[in-house]
Amino acid sequence: MRGTTLIARDDLARLVKRAGPTLLMDTVIERLRQHLAEPRADTLPVRGGFRHAQGGRSGVLEWMPYTDGEGAVTIKTVSYNPANAVAGTLPTIMGTISAYDLGTGRLLAMTDGVFLTALRTGAASAVASALLARPDSATVGLVGAGAQAVTQLHALTRVLPVERALVHDADPAAAASFADRVRFLPCRVEVADLADVEREADVLVTATSVGVGAGPVVRGESLTPHVHVNAIGSDLPGKVELPLALLREAFVCPDFREQAVAEGECQQLGAGDIGPELHELVRDPNSCLLLRDARTVFDSTGTAAEDHVAVHVLLELAREYGVGRQVPLEHVPADVRNPYDGLLASSMPMDTPLTAL
Amino acid sequence: MRGTTLIARDDLARLVKRAGPTLLMDTVIERLRQHLAEPRADTLPVRGGFRHAQGGRSGVLEWMPYTDGEGAVTIKTVSYNPANAVAGTLPTIMGTISAYDLGTGRLLAMTDGVFLTALRTGAASAVASALLARPDSATVGLVGAGAQAVTQLHALTRVLPVERALVHDADPAAAASFADRVRFLPCRVEVADLADVEREADVLVTATSVGVGAGPVVRGESLTPHVHVNAIGSDLPGKVELPLALLREAFVCPDFREQAVAEGECQQLGAGDIGPELHELVRDPNSCLLLRDARTVFDSTGTAAEDHVAVHVLLELAREYGVGRQVPLEHVPADVRNPYDGLLASSMPMDTPLTAL
Repeated sequence: MRGTTLIARDDLARLVKRAGPTLLMDTVIERLRQHLAEPRADTLPVRGGFRHAQGGRSGVLEWMPYTDGEGAVTIKTVSYNPANAVAGTLPTIMGTISAYDLGTGRLLAMTDGVFLTALRTGAASAVASALLARPDSATVGLVGAGAQAVTQLHALTRVLPVERALVHDADPAAAASFADRVRFLPCRVEVADLADVEREADVLVTATSVGVGAGPVVRGESLTPHVHVNAIGSDLPGKVELPLALLREAFVCPDFREQAVAEGECQQLGAGDIGPELHELVRDPNSCLLLRDARTVFDSTGTAAEDHVAVHVLLELAREYGVGRQVPLEHVPADVRNPYDGLLASSMPMDTPLTAL
Repeated sequence: MRGTTLIARDDLARLVKRAGPTLLMDTVIERLRQHLAEPRADTLPVRGGFRHAQGGRSGVLEWMPYTDGEGAVTIKTVSYNPANAVAGTLPTIMGTISAYDLGTGRLLAMTDGVFLTALRTGAASAVASALLARPDSATVGLVGAGAQAVTQLHALTRVLPVERALVHDADPAAAASFADRVRFLPCRVEVADLADVEREADVLVTATSVGVGAGPVVRGESLTPHVHVNAIGSDLPGKVELPLALLREAFVCPDFREQAVAEGECQQLGAGDIGPELHELVRDPNSCLLLRDARTVFDSTGTAAEDHVAVHVLLELAREYGVGRQVPLEHVPADVRNPYDGLLASSMPMDTPLTAL
């Protein structure tokens, strides 16, 4: 029997080097759009999680399950710990993604979720922005210049004619290093004040580690009348990046309403102020045409459906490029009714009787 | 940075062959007892899951998270598909167990959950039986002779002076092969009618794949007055193995009340008929002395706290015996703010600007 396919760090490096980040990003964007466009009998529970707070460190570890209604299950476990990146030792967002066969329960594959989370979150913003931003959007504003900002900008350059990115971060070092991290992208990068970013952005991305209760980050007083905002960072109860006035005035599209009202920007809104979910817009793109000249917000909390699409793109490319390894992670004995089959020494003596703990 | 420690099938075989199944079982029993005995600020959510049913096949895939209140997280994904074992290709219960560091979100280790689930479910029955069964219990009755029955009997022989096992299964081939599967245990094994098993058992184990709505399995008309029942198989809404009359009359101890009322034997009972949880008995063993001569039921639905204990015993032994492998499953770039760090070809040209969706 085959084992579980692992795509580990070096497999990922081989795969992305061969395929190129842009083929990968374009494929995830297009597959996600297709996935959202087709009606399906899938199930997407709101994610669960464990929070922790000790001294100055706080964070969360979450499990995000999804089943596509056709026998495939994807579960991501993902964590958010801003202290990781401040220390420079680990990414703020860590994770792994597992693909199962629902009919047998087998773990078919497991991959890194650090890279894929950044990739698919970028892809989701690209799908939303292609619908809701002006097609001539040339200036992207980035509030928060961490790991997610890299793939946000990459994804936006794939669907909009981006000429420059204005980047702001509360940590000047993060803002200063951003240009170097996106030097493969065909646009200018300028560090800017928050006010300038807000004033000039055709498309604005918020991807900060603002603390619970410390938001909003964006002031919203001088935004362009047609700005489209991809709000990425709000993903915990009490963590928000956008001011209420903007949310009230704008057309707000959540990725997943039930989750967005619990931990996204939609926490701040009543049900009547929240627009359709992204998949509803994808299925009716003409309804978005008139919205492109108005202020719009994509409230991106991140879904396991996005992870599902991304991991299957990765697995397909891994097969195509021959990367990945098989590991017999599950103990499948030859005699399926004997958990000890294959685990006992052939000369093992009979147990001596014992009693009492 | 170290990767994730994997204990795969061959690592597990090396480890169990060296340590022996009995050292492993004894250690898990004792650690589980200690774990339940100590008060702790842990969190054990009721598990979630996806069910499926197609033709004659039906099953479930579940996620079971646990955090110990001290920064360790264990998540098991586990599935139940009786058609696996009927086909003889895969065990009915498949699974993998992952250990995380809550403070950073790192996936520290991942192991098989097929073997560990059988092991820890046996250990839980041993902890309950050491408290609630008569200390001279010599006859174990097994209703259901599949994979779980092997570790149930093994665990019971570690805490009780078991001399013989009477085994019954709706599938005569499963019952017939049981003796061979437990030949390392120091007790006689006899295939028996269900009525004989019920009449003679000092300790009864139910571990069947009875269908939802098709139970109970046990008739309960001629049980010994002091029988202790470990009810293992009831783990789905509508799936039960014990008759209501027995549950009403007996002292019923669930492993995890909230889960047991949803999918264990406790589904059949009102709140007033359900006794304390196992950890409450472990903390007050004297309260069990008078119960040993009465009919008692351990309603075992299985908990991620048990998986947590088992996986940490396995990891400790793996370190001691030098088995397991390190795999860099998480993509941790040198620049933690750059998801593409280390993934791009050094000669990669700048992207060509855009294409629309």
